[in-house]
Amino acid sequence: MSNLEGEPRVTLAQLATAAGVSLPVTSKVLNGRSGVSPKTRAKVNALLEEHGYRPRQKSAEQASLIELVFHELESAWALEIIRGVEHVAREHGMSVVLTETGTRHTLGPEWIEGVLSRRPAGVVLVLSNLPLDFRRKLDVRDIPFVIIDPAGNPAPDVPSVGSANWAGGMLATRHLIDLGHKRIAVISGPKNMMCSLARIDGYRSAMNMANLPIDTGFIRYGDFHVDGGRAHAFALLRSTDPPTAIFAGSDLQALGVLDAARQIGLRVPEDLSIVGYDDLQLARWTSPALTTVHQPLIQMAEEAARMVLRFRSGERPNNCRIELATSLVVRQSTVAPSKDGNSP
Amino acid sequence: MSNLEGEPRVTLAQLATAAGVSLPVTSKVLNGRSGVSPKTRAKVNALLEEHGYRPRQKSAEQASLIELVFHELESAWALEIIRGVEHVAREHGMSVVLTETGTRHTLGPEWIEGVLSRRPAGVVLVLSNLPLDFRRKLDVRDIPFVIIDPAGNPAPDVPSVGSANWAGGMLATRHLIDLGHKRIAVISGPKNMMCSLARIDGYRSAMNMANLPIDTGFIRYGDFHVDGGRAHAFALLRSTDPPTAIFAGSDLQALGVLDAARQIGLRVPEDLSIVGYDDLQLARWTSPALTTVHQPLIQMAEEAARMVLRFRSGERPNNCRIELATSLVVRQSTVAPSKDGNSP
Repeated sequence: MSNLEGEPRVTLAQLATAAGVSLPVTSKVLNGRSGVSPKTRAKVNALLEEHGYRPRQKSAEQASLIELVFHELESAWALEIIRGVEHVAREHGMSVVLTETGTRHTLGPEWIEGVLSRRPAGVVLVLSNLPLDFRRKLDVRDIPFVIIDPAGNPAPDVPSVGSANWAGGMLATRHLIDLGHKRIAVISGPKNMMCSLARIDGYRSAMNMANLPIDTGFIRYGDFHVDGGRAHAFALLRSTDPPTAIFAGSDLQALGVLDAARQIGLRVPEDLSIVGYDDLQLARWTSPALTTVHQPLIQMAEEAARMVLRFRSGERPNNCRIELATSLVVRQSTVAPSKDGNSP
Repeated sequence: MSNLEGEPRVTLAQLATAAGVSLPVTSKVLNGRSGVSPKTRAKVNALLEEHGYRPRQKSAEQASLIELVFHELESAWALEIIRGVEHVAREHGMSVVLTETGTRHTLGPEWIEGVLSRRPAGVVLVLSNLPLDFRRKLDVRDIPFVIIDPAGNPAPDVPSVGSANWAGGMLATRHLIDLGHKRIAVISGPKNMMCSLARIDGYRSAMNMANLPIDTGFIRYGDFHVDGGRAHAFALLRSTDPPTAIFAGSDLQALGVLDAARQIGLRVPEDLSIVGYDDLQLARWTSPALTTVHQPLIQMAEEAARMVLRFRSGERPNNCRIELATSLVVRQSTVAPSKDGNSP
């Protein structure tokens, strides 16, 4: 079954014989070319996988592309990831092929056939996971892949790049505590995302270390978008004993908190301090400019592209998961709490 | 010299003879392959162009890529353009190859060689112009191209897609006039960009149509970025007779105006109405949400990609320049002026 160390390599001709088809047909399937019936394609693919076939030499001529696959380009950080992969591609005289999987949440068969026919140097995926059958198809063709996963839900044995979410939550909260805030609320993302949980745990540990009590209702799960931030901020700020600071969990949620504060008549930062998360370009452009946790999206993308190229040149992963450090960027949305609290 | 209608086609073999090299070498140059000396490459390229050589048949197998070239991906509207081209590529089962020319402002020879070797269906460029020698190289290989040019500076004979800047300036200004504003200032972009001039002329015509005087100092040229908007807004709002409304020329400049207003203590929209331009995603996320002129960036990119594919399938351009309509999106940053002006 598997292609163990020292086991003699199976040749493409042997596989063709086993499949009962010609060598050219077998080669067509391997390289994602057209002109093969779906039945034959499936049979050959199954044999390629079963025998752990690996091409003997890489086609250096064609390996000048890096494939970059997004679930949705609409995501606020898509552009930063594109820029990071593009930087590394340019360093190596390569180009980036971009695919958006779209709302179907899956990579269709036409995508994998396209990838196989382009024979890229490697694939960088911005997805929480890669379906097992695609993974096998890439493995068989010796096309390496790395997942960029800011959400923090990687499969344990898939090479992935993320960032330090727990430390980010800790940094944001300690900054507010150091300024003198005691009533600090957190709005994180959905409960089923690891990064949401990690940021809240970082918040909780910072509060515990400072011996500050955590108010019931001060830990909230949003949607990482503007509307979620606004809705939770209204609830928090209209409560009888509101927070003096909100760690908003994402820059977009921080925009929602800013809007709620303005509508209620609270000044930021005088009446309410806000910390974002991500450090998107727009965090510099809000009024006031956002204090936020910098998630190194461009560097994460660069690291993922470099990993793919190292795998391509033969290196095997030591450690499947790399997390880059987050850091605090202090701008104008945080100050010490005013003495009389934040009542308008 | 030129390949006139009815003139017999020159063959690649004839060109090889004329260049004094073999047919395979000539073919390598045509297809951007390696293994040819720079001197020979230059000689063959010159002959290909001189004789207006066109390949007899298109290689259908490889034409599954659209090249998309940016001057800089940092631009606020890069993502929307990527999404538009990606939509059309996906409709046609194609992929997008992305290149950023970077700060050098030029497309290097390695880019053109890469394009030639990939043999894309066509090239979409987000640049104000394409150097003549690249244009010739693409023409010779029958690779069509279209420029997306929101700046409005297209070369007259190059196929390009833009949007209606003059009409956009008119729409923004008429909206403010209809609300009852009389003291309206405009901050546009750099003086050397056609779109800046067109938006200001639209403003001027709207003011003239309404018989409203235009204050000296109310027409300003910014940089289309946040800082330019902020600086001009400070100057306008601190003058002895400030405007009650500002048409900010771009959404980023509108963010700068919002920040200046907040720092001065003016409420938006009660004390100052603001209209942006572009309708970037972030225009929905500001506080208050921006009234702005929608520039159909996604549709412009879709149109450019479709034009390229139509040229690929043999259609010749009727009209080199297409301008898509702009439209006004009314949100929360504009209301009727308060009776006592905008003094804080």
